[in-house]
Amino acid sequence: MGLVVQKYGGSSVADAEGIKRVAKRIVEAKKNGNQVVVVVSAMGDTTDELIDLAEQVSPMPAGREFDMLLTAGERISMALLAMAIKNLGHEAQSFTGSQAGVITDSVHNKARIIDVTPGRIRESLDRGNIAIVAGFQGVSQDKKDITTLGRGGSDTTAVALAAALDAEVCEIYTDVDGVFTADPRVVKKAKKIDWISFEDMLELASSGSKVLLHRCVEYARRYNIPIHVRSSFSGLQGTWVSSEPIKQGDKPVEQAIISGVAHDTSEAKVTVVGVPDKPGEAATIFRTISDAEINIDMIVQNVSAASTGLTDISFTLPKTEGRKAIDALEKNKAGIGFDSLRYDDQIGKISLVGAGMKTNPGVTASFFEALSDAGVNIELISTSEIRISVITRADDVNEAVRAVHTAFGLDSDSDEAVVYGGTGR
Amino acid sequence: MGLVVQKYGGSSVADAEGIKRVAKRIVEAKKNGNQVVVVVSAMGDTTDELIDLAEQVSPMPAGREFDMLLTAGERISMALLAMAIKNLGHEAQSFTGSQAGVITDSVHNKARIIDVTPGRIRESLDRGNIAIVAGFQGVSQDKKDITTLGRGGSDTTAVALAAALDAEVCEIYTDVDGVFTADPRVVKKAKKIDWISFEDMLELASSGSKVLLHRCVEYARRYNIPIHVRSSFSGLQGTWVSSEPIKQGDKPVEQAIISGVAHDTSEAKVTVVGVPDKPGEAATIFRTISDAEINIDMIVQNVSAASTGLTDISFTLPKTEGRKAIDALEKNKAGIGFDSLRYDDQIGKISLVGAGMKTNPGVTASFFEALSDAGVNIELISTSEIRISVITRADDVNEAVRAVHTAFGLDSDSDEAVVYGGTGR
Repeated sequence: MGLVVQKYGGSSVADAEGIKRVAKRIVEAKKNGNQVVVVVSAMGDTTDELIDLAEQVSPMPAGREFDMLLTAGERISMALLAMAIKNLGHEAQSFTGSQAGVITDSVHNKARIIDVTPGRIRESLDRGNIAIVAGFQGVSQDKKDITTLGRGGSDTTAVALAAALDAEVCEIYTDVDGVFTADPRVVKKAKKIDWISFEDMLELASSGSKVLLHRCVEYARRYNIPIHVRSSFSGLQGTWVSSEPIKQGDKPVEQAIISGVAHDTSEAKVTVVGVPDKPGEAATIFRTISDAEINIDMIVQNVSAASTGLTDISFTLPKTEGRKAIDALEKNKAGIGFDSLRYDDQIGKISLVGAGMKTNPGVTASFFEALSDAGVNIELISTSEIRISVITRADDVNEAVRAVHTAFGLDSDSDEAVVYGGTGR
Repeated sequence: MGLVVQKYGGSSVADAEGIKRVAKRIVEAKKNGNQVVVVVSAMGDTTDELIDLAEQVSPMPAGREFDMLLTAGERISMALLAMAIKNLGHEAQSFTGSQAGVITDSVHNKARIIDVTPGRIRESLDRGNIAIVAGFQGVSQDKKDITTLGRGGSDTTAVALAAALDAEVCEIYTDVDGVFTADPRVVKKAKKIDWISFEDMLELASSGSKVLLHRCVEYARRYNIPIHVRSSFSGLQGTWVSSEPIKQGDKPVEQAIISGVAHDTSEAKVTVVGVPDKPGEAATIFRTISDAEINIDMIVQNVSAASTGLTDISFTLPKTEGRKAIDALEKNKAGIGFDSLRYDDQIGKISLVGAGMKTNPGVTASFFEALSDAGVNIELISTSEIRISVITRADDVNEAVRAVHTAFGLDSDSDEAVVYGGTGR
C-alpha cells in the first residue's frame, strides 16, 4: 500500500461544490489502496477577504497577529473537506499545521519549515483515516506561535509532509493541466510537459513560471520526492517533476533539449552610474543592498571606459523592492562613490531553460537569432549552465516569448485553448 | 494594579468599525492601570455562515471537524482586535483557546472546561501586553483536539479565565445595558438591575433570561468572581452579579425582594396518562428519559383517582427534545405500563425570582392573584426556595409577564425604549 500526499489549491476548493468534487477525488485515491494525506489551501478568495479586513482595522498589520488571522482560512477549508469526505462514508480527520507537526522558524508571514514531526498524521493514517492538513502554516519552534509560510506555502507544506512521511508521490492539484513549455496565456501553442527534471523546474520557477514555486521544488529535490502537477478538474496525467524520467509504456520519456521558455515582468532594473573601476566597489554596492534585506536577481557590470576609469553596474530586483534599494544606495552614496542612479521598471525577462543546453552549443546563438528576427533588443544577458536569460523592454516580452518558443520547435500542433490561472498558495 | 477580564460578544465586533470601537475601550481599561485580558466571540454572523457552509457539504457535520471549523471565527476576530489595539499604540497578543490553556473534556460541540492553565497569558501580561483570547473554544485533555463549549461558551471562557487569573472582575460586554427585571421586548417598563446575587441570577438564567447562561454564572459563583454585564455601546454602569451587594456612594445597594420575572416559550409538556400509582413507576419513566440523554425541567404528578389506582405524570422539556422523549417512552411502554402519551408544545413558563421570597410569605399568593386578575390559567406549578414557576398557554405568556411585573412594583417610571438582543456566544 502506497502513501500519497495530495495538495489542493484555493481555486479547487472555492465553494461547497468544489469541496465535494475534491472529496470524491480523494476517496478515489483511498479506494485505490493508498494511504492519503491531503494538504489544502484556503477557499478561493478567503485570504484576500481576510487581508482586506486587516487593512480596515490597521494600516500595517503586525506579523504574529496577521498569521493568526490568515490561518483561519485553511482551518475552514480543511474542516469542510473532512466533513465532505465523511459524508461519502470514509473517515477523515483534519489537522492544523501545528497538529501536523510542521515546525518553522519565527519569521512571521514568511516562515521556513525547519522540521516536520508528523506523529499524529501517521497515527491517524494507521487507524485507516484520510488525514487533511492545513497548508501554508506551521508553529514556531521557540515561541510556539502560529506562523505562515508565505506565497506558495501550501505546496511546500505538501512536499515537506511527503518527505517526512516518505510518500511515493506528492500530487499538486491546481486549475491547469500541468507545467507548460511557456505561459499558455501568452503562447497559444504552448505544450504540457510530461516530465521535467528538478533542475530544469527550479530554473523555470526562478525565471517566472508560477505553477510551482522554487522553494517547493528545492525541497522536493533535496528529499527526492516526485511531484505530479495536475488538474483537479480533469482526470488527465499532468507534469511529473522528478530526478529520473518517468516511463510511458516501456520507455522512459525522452529528456527534451529545451524544457521551456519562461518570462517575468515583475522586475525592475537599477543602474549605478559612474562607479570607480577598482576592487571592492561591487562588494560595497551589494553589501548595501543585502543589508537592506533586498534580494536581487541579475547583475551586470559594463566594461569601464578607459578614459574615465569609471564603470556602470546594473542589477535587477522585484519592483516591490525598488524604492527600498534606491533609498539604501542614496543613503550610502558617499561610501560607494557613484555619480547617479537610474531606475527602470519597464523591463521584462525572457529565459530559455533546458539541461540539453550543456551539450548543444548552438542553443545560445539560436536564442539570440530568434530574438533578433523578432526585432527584440537585448539589454542584459545572464546565463547558468542550463538557462539563458535576457532583459528586454517590457512591451517586447510577449512577442519575444512566442518567437523563441517557435524557434526551438516547442509549438504544439493543436490549437486547443488552455485555461490557465493561479495555483492559490 | 488590578486584573480585568473583558468579554465582547459577536454583535460588539460585527465589523471593522465595531472592532476599532472595542479596541479603544480596551485601551481605556489598560490606561486606567489595569492588566487586561479580553475574550472575544466570532464577528457578527460568521458562525452562522460557517454552519451554512458545513450544511452544504454534509447533512450531518461531525463533531470534531465541526469544532475545527467553528473556531476559525474567533481566530479571525481576535487577530483583528489585536491588530486594532496595536494600531492605537499598545501591545496586544492573541491566543487560541488551546494557547490560553483552556483544557476541556472531549465532548465536541459542547465541551466542558475542566482546567485552565493560563501560563502564556500571565507571561504576556507581565510583559505589559493586552492579551486577547478566543472565546468558546478549548483543547481536549486526552486527545489534544480542538473543542467548542456550546452556546454562551465565550462567557464561560471569560469567567473561567477570570477565576484562573484571580481577576477583580469579569466584564461581559453585550448589546444591552445589563440584566433587566423582565425581557424589555415584552415589558416596556422593565428596569435595569444594578446588582443581583449569584443565586437569583442562576434562577433567572435557568428560567429563560438569556443575558447570561447558567453555566457561566455557576462558574462565577463557585470561584466568587464578580460579573459586570454592560453595554459595549455606552459607558453606563450595567448589572453587577456577585455574592455581596455593590456599594452606591457609601451604602450597599439594597437587596430587592423580587429580582425579576423571566419567561420561556422554548419548552413543551409531555403527559404520561394512566400510570399505575405504585412505587417505582416515576423512577422507571425518568430512567427511560435520562437514558435517552434528555434533560427535563419541571415534573408534576397528579393525585391518583381512587377508583382506578391510576395517575398521570407530566414533565416539561426543550421542544427540540420532544420527539426523542416520545420515542423513548413509546419504546418502553410495556416496561412502564401507561395508557397513552400527550404532547403539548403550545405552553409557556413564567417564573418569579427573588431571595426575598424566603422571608415574605405573601409572595406566592400575590403571584397567583396577579395571574388570575389577568385571566391567565395555571397548568403546572413548581417552586424552589427563591423561585416560583408556572406553566400557562403560550399565548398568555406576554400578558402574564406584564401583569406580574406590575403587581410586584417592578415597573420603571420612565417609558424609555430599551434595545435588547442576543449576546452572541
